This record gives sequence, structure tokens and C-alpha cells, in this order.
Amino acid sequence: MRDVAVIGVGMTQFGELWERSFRDIGLEAGMSAMVDAGIGSDDIDALYVGNMSAGMFIEQEHVGALIADYVGLSDSHIPSVRVEAGGASGALALRQGYLSVASGVNDIVVVGGAEKMTDVADTAAEDILSKSADQEWEVFFGATLTSLYAMMARRHMHEFGTTAEQLAQVSVLNHTHGSMNPKAHFRNRVKLEHVLGSPIAASPLRTLECAPVSDGGAAVILASMDKAEEFKGDRPLVKISGSAQASDTISLHARSEFTSLTSTREAARKAYKRAGLTAKDIDVAEINDNFTIAALMALEALGFAEKGKSGPWIEEGNGALDGSLPINPSGGLKARGQPPGAVGIAQAAEIVSQLRGECGDRNVKDPRVGLTHNLGGTGATSIVHIFEVV
Amino acid sequence: MRDVAVIGVGMTQFGELWERSFRDIGLEAGMSAMVDAGIGSDDIDALYVGNMSAGMFIEQEHVGALIADYVGLSDSHIPSVRVEAGGASGALALRQGYLSVASGVNDIVVVGGAEKMTDVADTAAEDILSKSADQEWEVFFGATLTSLYAMMARRHMHEFGTTAEQLAQVSVLNHTHGSMNPKAHFRNRVKLEHVLGSPIAASPLRTLECAPVSDGGAAVILASMDKAEEFKGDRPLVKISGSAQASDTISLHARSEFTSLTSTREAARKAYKRAGLTAKDIDVAEINDNFTIAALMALEALGFAEKGKSGPWIEEGNGALDGSLPINPSGGLKARGQPPGAVGIAQAAEIVSQLRGECGDRNVKDPRVGLTHNLGGTGATSIVHIFEVV
Repeated sequence: MRDVAVIGVGMTQFGELWERSFRDIGLEAGMSAMVDAGIGSDDIDALYVGNMSAGMFIEQEHVGALIADYVGLSDSHIPSVRVEAGGASGALALRQGYLSVASGVNDIVVVGGAEKMTDVADTAAEDILSKSADQEWEVFFGATLTSLYAMMARRHMHEFGTTAEQLAQVSVLNHTHGSMNPKAHFRNRVKLEHVLGSPIAASPLRTLECAPVSDGGAAVILASMDKAEEFKGDRPLVKISGSAQASDTISLHARSEFTSLTSTREAARKAYKRAGLTAKDIDVAEINDNFTIAALMALEALGFAEKGKSGPWIEEGNGALDGSLPINPSGGLKARGQPPGAVGIAQAAEIVSQLRGECGDRNVKDPRVGLTHNLGGTGATSIVHIFEVV
Repeated sequence: MRDVAVIGVGMTQFGELWERSFRDIGLEAGMSAMVDAGIGSDDIDALYVGNMSAGMFIEQEHVGALIADYVGLSDSHIPSVRVEAGGASGALALRQGYLSVASGVNDIVVVGGAEKMTDVADTAAEDILSKSADQEWEVFFGATLTSLYAMMARRHMHEFGTTAEQLAQVSVLNHTHGSMNPKAHFRNRVKLEHVLGSPIAASPLRTLECAPVSDGGAAVILASMDKAEEFKGDRPLVKISGSAQASDTISLHARSEFTSLTSTREAARKAYKRAGLTAKDIDVAEINDNFTIAALMALEALGFAEKGKSGPWIEEGNGALDGSLPINPSGGLKARGQPPGAVGIAQAAEIVSQLRGECGDRNVKDPRVGLTHNLGGTGATSIVHIFEVV
């Protein structure tokens, strides 16, 4: 397996993009990453597309071919692979693209992810997101992704004394960071009392603890190291030093306990091992805060906080831009936005931009190593990537 | 890139499986391939799942994790990758699994595909299949996959003098072969007059020229050659000697002409090159006859018939089991059935079984080299695999 670098990143505005279609969004994300990398379509060997549910959101399947066509790659008959793993669809595309370059199958690939969620009503969008949990044994009986995470939150509070304030602090942190990101869906800051005063979504989770329904796209260009040297210019070169994916049961009831994201723990263990690093080596991380409780559990599973101690960890300000380990400088899923197919790739784009020092006011001080964490469903899929300045 | 062998194959009954759920079908397909290979879950490095539209058919996304869970792989946290490319979803999973083993990322993988189409009405199923064409520029305005292929058929007739009888002959051939396949959706033979007397679906295509709405699953186990030697027993070992994917525009109107499957021609060219073979070396082929015209165009694009001469080629009986190149011994999409996520993998299972000589009455005489051809949409994705007895 050879080293793989990220030579270009791009993303669209995230938000309610009423006037833009799925293909517009995918096209802009892909083209902006290609421009950032300085490559043309002749340089590309393959396209990997992350998308959760274009079928249900916009009645379009076969979106890999669609995006290849609109990015101008159909003339050269470039193979395009659409992958899906619920909310982890973006990182799954990143991982498949990474493996294809690491293994020598391809030299340069485009990894893009997009989702157009706002063509359906908000309630329908939540229904569709919930299809990443177990339709037959959970969702059919009325569970939603929100209510499943709410049960995880309730149990975490019961077992470890995690407080509503600690949960809410995750949202405050994300909005603070998102306010500095011009491409974020939400750029307003929120205070603890705003979060705690927002309506209950599924007790104990409140509306301002749930990531929004967003449209958006993101893309990265991956290249083998020798190709990357050609295109790097005078910017720091960032490589992917670890990539791992792990599964868990699709339904919560089949797990021995649900205050742990076991798949995240496994993916992190493998990614750290591959990179020859530990949690202590990470300078900045983008984690999957689709709900505040997911972020807390992720902090524990990734080895950033001790088991059961993620609440105090956040409360102490460790995740702030000047904290011990800045979390979600982009604003995370809560503030930057949550188009599922794009999230995992937008996370990668943010970390690469951070490591290059291109994030302006929200740039962490001189980061060398970054991590991304992307979740599908209630944790049936977890994908972790580690990025390093070469 | 190292050689990859197929060490196990399995499939469920194809048909209207009212009493069986998607997960049952996926489980049976996967387990039967594992039993055929003689491997256990500890041997498996990864799972690749082909599925076109579980979202729209059964309101379940995240089916990679779902199948990993139900096949018993969630305990070991095996990564599972769901891929989609319309009707070519199955072959896309096969290709991704193949690349992962060929490149050394994995040693043994399960590639499974499944679709549960009959939980929605037949008309809804056709609507969903049509989402592999261009929703915004074709389907929204009333085009269906059937009517798009009908236009291709009409033009093929106009340009090359292809006749309704020649088209119909594809269906007769498939039903003849399907009658010998106990797992086929349809086991009835049909005569030319039955096909030509069946109702018009979209002129000139008649109902009996269109593949049915089917439930079903199929799986194959891929292994590196050294691993394959361990598990082969006393059966012939079959390797994948070529694998290629190519794209075309998603909509018909964007092509310079539509009597050619350009993506198929490109994929075939690359697959032949990789295998060091030509069309003349193929002893048996499974091609994508979702409509009779698709099969004729595929015969030309794959190099089996000259451009415009596929009609006479079929009429002369070349595709029969004792013909110059037996086509679709399984019964093809028309008779074996058409669950999109499973088709490409069922094709591979058939070819491997043919090469092993395990197909009884429908086994071609001593084949050494077989080919599979899987199409997405109206040809925006084509995937070709070549299999050889080692």
C-alpha cells in the first residue's frame, strides 16, 4: 500500500439551497476541488461519489454516472462508483477512493459527495435520515434517528451522570466555530440557555442539539505521492496516514450496551495503528455530531475523553479552537450542516484546509495531524481517517 | 495487481418472493456462497453489497451494514460497502470486491447483491427502475426505461433493418434457457408468436421483451490465488481475468447516437485487454437483456456480432446452448429474473458454475472462458468481467 495525498479540496455553500439542483451542487463541489488541485479531467482515473438517498430525496438513482456526466467525465468513460452507508456515505466514498489509489489501481481520483435534502418537507427528510437505522425493527414501529439517539443520551446520563448542560455545550461549541465559516449552514452563535430553552425533539435531546436538514456538496482530489508532488505547488502537502471502517449491528436492541460507539472504537483503533499514532497525537478533529450525544460518545470512542467523561471534557472547554484538542472547527454537522453524502468529505476538506493553514480566523494553531470521524445510522458504520502534513 | 479467484457462488430463488424479506434474501445468498466456498465468517475481510434502490423499494438505506449484521459479521466489525449504479449495481459490487483483493487490500471478500422489488406495485417498480435514467431531463417528462429503450430499438430497426422477429428471438432464447434453471423466475418456454402477440409495452417493444420485476439475491466469494488454493477442493478453479467499468452520459439525448452501447464497448475493450483475450475467445456469456434491444446492442458492443448485424446473429441461432457462442444459459434477465442489485452477481455465479460444469442440462459443452455484461440505466454504466478456468 502506497501513500496517498489530498491535493485538492472544494465544497459548496451548505444550507437550504432552494435554487440549486443536486447536479449543480455536485458539479460545483467537484469542479472547485479540481481547480484547487490544478488538475484537468484528463488527469482523472476514477470518480467516487458518496450519497445517502438521492432515490428518496430527489427520485434519482445512478448518481455516480450522473455526476461523472455533469463533471464532464462521460466522454472519457471514466468509471464512477456511488457508495452509500447512511450518514457515513461521504467518508465511505473517501475510503474507497483512498484504497483505490493506495493499492495502485488508480493514480488520481475525485471523491465527491452531495445531498439535496430540501426538495422534500422537513418531516420527510427526518423520515429518510431514519432509514439508516433498522426500518423493519425500529423505524416501522415509530422510532426515528432522533429518538434512538435520545435513548443513548438518556442512558449515558443515567450511567455516567452526563448533564443536559454538557450535551448542550456541544451545540454551543459547534455554533461558535460555524460562525467563522462562510460556507456553514448556520453562522449564528448560540448560548447554553438558547439550546436548553429550545423545544424538545426527543427527550432529552432538544431541537438545537440536532443537526439540520441541509443541501450541499464537497469534494477532494486524491493522488499517489509521486503525482501529488507534481501538483502541490508551494502549499504544504497533506497525506492520509490512516483509513479504517468498522461495522456494528444496524439496530440498537441487538447491542450489548448502547453508551458506546463500538464501531467507532474499532475503526479508530485500526486507523491509529495504520498511522502509527495515538489519540494524543491528534491536533484537530472533525467528529460526527449529528446529535450532541453522538459527539460525546465519539469523543470517548476515539480515545479523546475517558469512557463516561466526555461531558466534563467538553464542559472544560477542551474542544475550543484554543483548547487541548479543537473539535469541529468547521462548525460540525450542527452548524456547518448535514447533507449526509457530503459530510464525510466536507470533514476531510476542513482538516486538509486546517493543516494547510487556510482557514483564517478559525484555523487551529499550527496543526500537523488531523482526524475525521463519520457515522452511519446509530453507529452501524463508522469510518475514521487520519491526515498528516508530510 | 494479483490474480483473484471465485471460490464460492450462491443465489436464492428469483421470482415474486412474497413471503421473504430483503434481509432473508441477502442472508440466504451470502450464506449459500459461504457454504459453497467452505469458508466461515472468520475468513472474511470485507463485504461488498450491490443494491439499486432499497430506499425506494423497502424504505431501507444503509443496507451494507444491514447485510453485514444479518450474515453475522457485525461482531467482527467487518467493513461493508454498499454500491449502486442502477441495474449495474451487482457488477459494480463485484468489481469493487475484485479490486480490493487484486490490489492486496483484502484476501477474502463476500460480494452480495439483493433486491426486493415486489413490496411495491408493478407500476411503482417500473417507476423506480426508471430512476436510473435522467430524472430531471427524461423521466420527469414521462419517459420510462422501457420507452427509452423502445426509442433505441426503433432507431436500430430503422438504421440496420433489424426486425421485430429478431428482437423477439432474444426473449425466446432466454425463456428456452430459463426453463432449465430451477432458480429462474420464469421457467415457461415461449414461442415467437407468443412474444409478438404480447401487448405493446412501448412500441416496438412488447411485454414479453421486457425483463420482469423480481426479488432475489446472489453472492460470490472472491479470494486471492493462494487463499483460493486452500479452499478449492477438487473443483476447477475459476479466476477473474478481466474487469472493467465505463461510463456514458446519463441521458440519451446527450449522446451522438443511440444505437451503440458505447460504455459497453469501452468496458469490453479494457476487459479483453486486461485478460489478453478477444471476443472470439469467449465460450459462454451472460449479457444484460433487460430489454431485447439491449441484448442485441450488447452483442455488437461486446464484439460478438458486427455493428448492425446482431439481429441476424440471434436469428441464426448463434446464442443457443449448442450455438457458436451460447448467450444467457441462466435464462438472462428476462427469464431468470431482474432484481437489479443481484443481476450482475447472479451472472457471475452462472458463469462460474458453467465453467465448473455444474449446470446440468443447461451447461455449455466444456467452456473455458466466460464473460458477464451488466448495464445501468440506458447504458450510462457498463461493467464487463471475464472469467477463466485456471
